[in-house]
Amino acid sequence: MGQAGRFITLEGGEGAGKTTQIVRLAEWLRAGGREVVTTREPGGAAGAEMIRKLLVEGPAERWDGPTEALLHYAARRDHLRSTVWPALGRGAWVISDRFADSTRAYQGYGHGLDLALLARLHDVAIGEFEPDLTLILDLPIDIGLARAAARRGSETRYESLPRDFHERVHAGFRAIAKSAPGRCAIVDASTDIDTIATAIARIVAERLGA
Amino acid sequence: MGQAGRFITLEGGEGAGKTTQIVRLAEWLRAGGREVVTTREPGGAAGAEMIRKLLVEGPAERWDGPTEALLHYAARRDHLRSTVWPALGRGAWVISDRFADSTRAYQGYGHGLDLALLARLHDVAIGEFEPDLTLILDLPIDIGLARAAARRGSETRYESLPRDFHERVHAGFRAIAKSAPGRCAIVDASTDIDTIATAIARIVAERLGA
Repeated sequence: MGQAGRFITLEGGEGAGKTTQIVRLAEWLRAGGREVVTTREPGGAAGAEMIRKLLVEGPAERWDGPTEALLHYAARRDHLRSTVWPALGRGAWVISDRFADSTRAYQGYGHGLDLALLARLHDVAIGEFEPDLTLILDLPIDIGLARAAARRGSETRYESLPRDFHERVHAGFRAIAKSAPGRCAIVDASTDIDTIATAIARIVAERLGA
Repeated sequence: MGQAGRFITLEGGEGAGKTTQIVRLAEWLRAGGREVVTTREPGGAAGAEMIRKLLVEGPAERWDGPTEALLHYAARRDHLRSTVWPALGRGAWVISDRFADSTRAYQGYGHGLDLALLARLHDVAIGEFEPDLTLILDLPIDIGLARAAARRGSETRYESLPRDFHERVHAGFRAIAKSAPGRCAIVDASTDIDTIATAIARIVAERLGA
């Protein structure tokens, strides 16, 4: 993946502040002289953004769990092939708003899709590729959903799901962090923007030597 | 899958006459008192038809092979869940214009995607489900492409691929028929419509007792 490229993903429930923190992390890395590419899932490439529309709009029951997971991995492969892998290949640092852990948390823990089946799908779709570092922004779900509601646009398909779904997603992200401690770090996202940004910069410096 | 439901798929290259023969086969089965549902892939359900648009329109290089296969299986699962499985469950006969063999022939044999990977994707997406009978309409590719060109609309993404691609697809369908002789039958599609319809009805009667 090139000499110095790193792939960092930010994960967490709705309204956890991922977008804001990605801007801050990118600024900090660029100030250190890195080329930084910021991107998002589902989407992050022309084809993947078309698939995103099928996933984030429309009624919640539009797709069943396995179909939804297949669409996420189709978008993910297009995103990797078109955006992430070329950037890593030239040594850039890539920061993505959501990645495979979101599929595990939302379709796996949230919708009850078999985690072993998701692991097989991951392998079929993109091989053993994983981020170098995953920052999981952790926030009480009531605060997150209130924040997400305040900025509500047309992409409400996930936010409209019931509270117990979001509770399972939240617990899922914590379980993922526990199962992959070398890759994942949990960040307390209930404090202010500057404090969170400082915490993230410290983790990136410690783990990736940025 | 219910007491008397059967799933029949028609396969073959461009311009093989699948659509015409599906109408004839459905008429013949209905005349025998069967409930018949005709459908198609990619598509055949509301969500799957939206995915179809991503697959059949746009430039040929829009998706790489694995991404394309993931999209086909997302559409396929939606098609099965929304259309095929409910119909089979109530005892209907379902006839589909293309199914999983098209993914094997086009993405596997045509684009060189690993057939073992496609088999794993099939299993992850829809389990071990296969048609009761697959009719492969076989036609010299020059005749097929000329027929397809004559009716050309907006869905030209596959037809625009080079001749050697269509040769590999054609050979692929024959290889599939050879590897699954209990499920597949090759039909000579170079004769006239009535002769082909009679041949198909004979196979369906012999294999499925229609």
